[in-house]
Amino acid sequence: MARKRTVAAAQLGPIALSESRASVVARLCALLAEARARGATFVVFPELALTTFFPRYVFEDEAELDRFYEGSLPGPDAAPLFEAAREAGIGFYLGFAERVEEAGRIRRFNTAITVDAAGRVIGRYRKVHLPGHAEPQPGRAFQHLEKRYFEPGNLGFPVFEGLGGKMGMLICNDRRWPEAYRVMGLQDVELVCLGYNTPLDHADHEEINVLSGFHNALSMQAGAYQNATWVIGAAKGGREEGSLMLAESCIIAPSGQIVAQATTMEDELVCATIDLDMGRPYKETFFDFARHREPEAYRLIVERKGPGPMLGAKSASEA
Amino acid sequence: MARKRTVAAAQLGPIALSESRASVVARLCALLAEARARGATFVVFPELALTTFFPRYVFEDEAELDRFYEGSLPGPDAAPLFEAAREAGIGFYLGFAERVEEAGRIRRFNTAITVDAAGRVIGRYRKVHLPGHAEPQPGRAFQHLEKRYFEPGNLGFPVFEGLGGKMGMLICNDRRWPEAYRVMGLQDVELVCLGYNTPLDHADHEEINVLSGFHNALSMQAGAYQNATWVIGAAKGGREEGSLMLAESCIIAPSGQIVAQATTMEDELVCATIDLDMGRPYKETFFDFARHREPEAYRLIVERKGPGPMLGAKSASEA
Repeated sequence: MARKRTVAAAQLGPIALSESRASVVARLCALLAEARARGATFVVFPELALTTFFPRYVFEDEAELDRFYEGSLPGPDAAPLFEAAREAGIGFYLGFAERVEEAGRIRRFNTAITVDAAGRVIGRYRKVHLPGHAEPQPGRAFQHLEKRYFEPGNLGFPVFEGLGGKMGMLICNDRRWPEAYRVMGLQDVELVCLGYNTPLDHADHEEINVLSGFHNALSMQAGAYQNATWVIGAAKGGREEGSLMLAESCIIAPSGQIVAQATTMEDELVCATIDLDMGRPYKETFFDFARHREPEAYRLIVERKGPGPMLGAKSASEA
Repeated sequence: MARKRTVAAAQLGPIALSESRASVVARLCALLAEARARGATFVVFPELALTTFFPRYVFEDEAELDRFYEGSLPGPDAAPLFEAAREAGIGFYLGFAERVEEAGRIRRFNTAITVDAAGRVIGRYRKVHLPGHAEPQPGRAFQHLEKRYFEPGNLGFPVFEGLGGKMGMLICNDRRWPEAYRVMGLQDVELVCLGYNTPLDHADHEEINVLSGFHNALSMQAGAYQNATWVIGAAKGGREEGSLMLAESCIIAPSGQIVAQATTMEDELVCATIDLDMGRPYKETFFDFARHREPEAYRLIVERKGPGPMLGAKSASEA
């Protein structure tokens, strides 16, 4: 009763600021063709996969900023990807900057969609955990202005049917937050797809920078294990417009084991044949949530945003 | 402005079913003496550190069960440990089975206390995540009856002042649950102490058993990193009454790096000099909770105990 599927993480090397959408889409199509040749039926592309990682720049002119965003997909530029995927019978996850009119105003989100093998959009996710700043930080070689160019996602962490299983999505920094995986775990997720852009040169602390690869794997492995789900992480890596970004795209099992990993910082496809039932033994023992979780003890997770007073003395005497 | 302290994980090898409390306490005192010689001012002992791991047995007779529990500590048997620690000026974490009269009835908890260098109990924690079963499982070489012999802890996850910092406690299976670390992270915890007994022979799946060491480290490393806190994990390991248990006690930095680890399955002390300020750069950037967390998106964590319906279709159209 194994539910096996061959899936891929389609890593991208750098995208130049001047590179056209058509050129990028041609690269995505080449990775898709390789996925088809290797028997994959689902491909995960990175976050903001159609452009350079533009939050590193300060744009004062809104028209200049707008050129990095999409309205609805597929637009004319991305259409060849959607057509090639449908023709090949391959579904995919794609990250992009979304500009929409909602609630009577223009809104901008860091978004990913999942498209099934028939070309239908079956899932949409808007990044909840925006890193960086809203205002340019003095003295930085590269800015990280996601809080300026996007608002936090307003769709929660939806899980939906796909690949004959239960799928969810995250984007980049989301992967460091156990809450994000857990909300999907509580929907019995079986496969989490996520794309990322992780600059290695924007933290103020070199001792953190050098651990970027370790932290990337640790976060995804823990999220996979603790929710008994597959995770596919696809990077845009390499030195992009001078900014070095982590690559190390990988496919992680519900055991937390890395079963496939990219070794270059360029366009590279990594594949694995995964069994969507593999998480079952974990969900029936260690992570049988219905038997073992104690939600009353977790209330602080939703009652506090940032850290607050210690509860030690009170909890012992006033419980 | 570093706040450096030398701390230790005091791993225990097996405790025989027939071993006396006095004999066990003598072993704890020997580890304490070694800690003193190595300059440590705080020692973490394992979960249920005064007895064999008795939840592997079925006891029908309550009097027979009661001999594994303590009323208040220090009782006469444990007094030498408390005296030696106070005399040495060393604080400690100690796990034990607690039997108390509360709310008009006898209650049993899997408990840990933290004692400061002056011999005062400054923190008490009762294990929230009880693994195993309430009823004996047919066909198992060793039972795991924590749900029979304990009720879930009723003190939450308190953080309290200790070692000139902010301390919290977990016990064994708690370490696999990111909610547990996060509730303490939201109290700005700087050092989490935890003891564990992890049998390698009780899961029904060999492929999970063989990953026990990996899952132990992964869970503690992720909890440390994602909350930018030190974690000290102390095992009772080795083959105890025929049941093989994981050892691999370790001390983990707020970076997630393992800075000290036991290599035997016997009584063994591992020490490290830790800086309680080390988590600060993480708490001011990646894990600046007040800037980056989005509690509204986490509500399912407290609204559901076990997994429920997928929210996919609704979240996109009705958000």
